[in-house]
Amino acid sequence: MSVGTASKALNGRGQLRAETRDRVRAAAQELGFVPNAVAASLLSGRTYTVGLIMTDHHGRFGLPIPHGAEDALGWGETVAFVCDTRDDPIREQHYVRSLLRRRVDGIIVAGRRTEARLPLAGIPASMAAGGPAVPVVYAFARSADAGDCSVVVDEAAGAVTAVEHLVRTGRRRIAHVTGPHGHASVRARVEGTHRALRAAGLDLVGEPWYGGWSEVWGRFAAAALTRSHPEVDAVFCGSDVIARGVADGLRESGRRLPDDVALVGVDNWAPVAEGCRPPLTTVDLNLREVGRVAGTLLLRAIVHGTEAGLHTVACRLVVRASSAPA
Amino acid sequence: MSVGTASKALNGRGQLRAETRDRVRAAAQELGFVPNAVAASLLSGRTYTVGLIMTDHHGRFGLPIPHGAEDALGWGETVAFVCDTRDDPIREQHYVRSLLRRRVDGIIVAGRRTEARLPLAGIPASMAAGGPAVPVVYAFARSADAGDCSVVVDEAAGAVTAVEHLVRTGRRRIAHVTGPHGHASVRARVEGTHRALRAAGLDLVGEPWYGGWSEVWGRFAAAALTRSHPEVDAVFCGSDVIARGVADGLRESGRRLPDDVALVGVDNWAPVAEGCRPPLTTVDLNLREVGRVAGTLLLRAIVHGTEAGLHTVACRLVVRASSAPA
Repeated sequence: MSVGTASKALNGRGQLRAETRDRVRAAAQELGFVPNAVAASLLSGRTYTVGLIMTDHHGRFGLPIPHGAEDALGWGETVAFVCDTRDDPIREQHYVRSLLRRRVDGIIVAGRRTEARLPLAGIPASMAAGGPAVPVVYAFARSADAGDCSVVVDEAAGAVTAVEHLVRTGRRRIAHVTGPHGHASVRARVEGTHRALRAAGLDLVGEPWYGGWSEVWGRFAAAALTRSHPEVDAVFCGSDVIARGVADGLRESGRRLPDDVALVGVDNWAPVAEGCRPPLTTVDLNLREVGRVAGTLLLRAIVHGTEAGLHTVACRLVVRASSAPA
Repeated sequence: MSVGTASKALNGRGQLRAETRDRVRAAAQELGFVPNAVAASLLSGRTYTVGLIMTDHHGRFGLPIPHGAEDALGWGETVAFVCDTRDDPIREQHYVRSLLRRRVDGIIVAGRRTEARLPLAGIPASMAAGGPAVPVVYAFARSADAGDCSVVVDEAAGAVTAVEHLVRTGRRRIAHVTGPHGHASVRARVEGTHRALRAAGLDLVGEPWYGGWSEVWGRFAAAALTRSHPEVDAVFCGSDVIARGVADGLRESGRRLPDDVALVGVDNWAPVAEGCRPPLTTVDLNLREVGRVAGTLLLRAIVHGTEAGLHTVACRLVVRASSAPA
C-alpha cells in the first residue's frame, strides 16, 4: 500500500473503499501511531491553538474566565497556551511574540481590573508580512480601542440589583462600604448604588465608605458606621471579603444579622460568602460567562474575522441568609 | 540575497558576516516578519511546548503549582498547554491524545489530593511507532507506578513542624481538628501530630476530630472540644478554613486567642489565614516549590530521559499572631 493511500485513510481525504480505510486505521492503532498535528497545521494554516494571556492567572479573578473560555472553545480541539504576565508589560510582550511564533489562531486577554487597557502591542495587521491578523478578544478589562472586541461585566447594573433586593426586602437605611476610590469597579458600584436608591426615592446613609479590599477594613468600617449612623438597616459591600469584616464588626457592635442589619457583598467567592455568618447574599459577576462569551467570539473571529464591539454580561444576585426580610 | 542566506541570518546558523546578518534582521523587523515556530519544530524535533494536566485548575490547590512550573520552564521559551480535566478520566484521556498529537515535549500532571494516582494512560513507550516516549512528571499526587517521576509534599513532616512549634512556645494540651478520615493528607497529618507529641513526651488531648473541610465544622468542633476537654491550650487544625471556624468557636466559648489557646492551620491560604482573628500561624505546603521542582525535572527528562523517583518538598511554618507564646 502506498504512503498516499495510508495518508488518505488516516486523514479521511480522497476516495477509498471503506474496507481499505478500516484496515489502515486498524494497523495504525496497532502500531500506536499518533497523527502529527504540528505537520498537519502547516497544511491547513490553522493550529487549533489559542493563547490565553492573563494578568492574574493565580489570583482568584482570572480563574472562572479560562474555565468559561474552555467550555466555548471545546478545549479538546482547540487547546490553549496559558500565559501569566504577572501584570508585567515586558512579560506580556514576550508572550505575544511567543504566541505569534507558534501561529496561534487567536488570543484571549483576560484582565484583573475593569479599567480599559491598551490593546496588545505587536499584533500584525492583516496585510503585514508577519502573516494574517491574529484575532484578539479582551475579557473583563476591555480594550481602550473601540475597534477591538471586548467582553465586560455590567458592574453598575450588578449594584442596582443588590440595592433593589435590599429595598424589596424592606430595608430603607442603606449604607455602602467598598474598596479604593481609584478602582473603576468601585466607582461603577457606587454609581449603581446611587441610581437604585434614587429610583426608590431613598438616599444613601452617609457617604460611600472607601477603603481597602480587606476584612480588617470591613470590621473597622462597621464599627465606625454603627457609631455615626446607628439607624443603618442594611449595608451593601463592594466585595465579599469586605462584607465578611462588616458582618463581624456589626455583630460585635451588638447588631443581629439579618434581623437588625441586612448585608450584601460582591463576587460570590464561595469560601468567603459561605463561611460568612450568616451566609452572604452576593452579586455574582458571572466571570465564567464572560469567558464563555469571549471564547465564542474568538472562534467566530478566527473564521470570519474580528468584529469590533463591546459585549456586556449581566451579573446575577445569589440570595443567602444575610439579607432575609427584616 | 538568497533565501538560504536570509534563513541562516534569521536562525543564527551557518557562517555569515555580522554586517549581512544585521541587514537581514533589520529588514525582517521592518517587514514585521515573525519566524514560524511550527515549521521550525518539524526540523528540530522539539516543539518547546509542554502539557500541564490539572485536575483542579480552578480551585485553589492547583494554582501555585503552574506558577512554580512556569518559573522553572522559562515559559517564554517553553509554553504550556493548560488542560483542566475537572476530575474526569474521559477528559484526561482526551487531553493526553490531544497533547500527543501536538507533539508536546513533556507533560506535568498536577493532582488535587495526595492519594497516589494511576499513571497517565496512552503515553507511548520509547520504542513504539508513535515516536519517542513523552516524559511525564507527577506533581502533588504521586504516580502509583514507582517507575515514574513524582514530586510530593512531606505532609507528615509539616504536621511535626506545627506541633513542635506549639510545644516550643509552651503549649502542653494540644488537640487536633481536621478533615475527612478518608483523605491521605488527613491521615499523614494525624500521623505527624502523634509522632511530634510522642517525641515531646506528650499525648494528644482526646482523639483527632475528623470532619469536613469547612468553617462550620471548625466552629462546631471548637464548641464541643471546650466542653469535653476544657484543659486544651492549643489546637492544630488540618486546614486554614477549619482553623478559622475553630478560632470563632473558641472565642465564643470565652477563650482568648492566643493567650488561652494557640492555633495553627495548614495551607497558608492568604485570604483565610490573614482574615483570621488573630492572623493564623499555618503550615505552607510549598506548592509553588512543588511546581518548580516538577518543571526542573521535566526539563531534565526532556533532554536526558525520565529518571524514576519520588522527590519530596518540605513544608514551612509561617508564624503569625495565633500562636504567640502563652
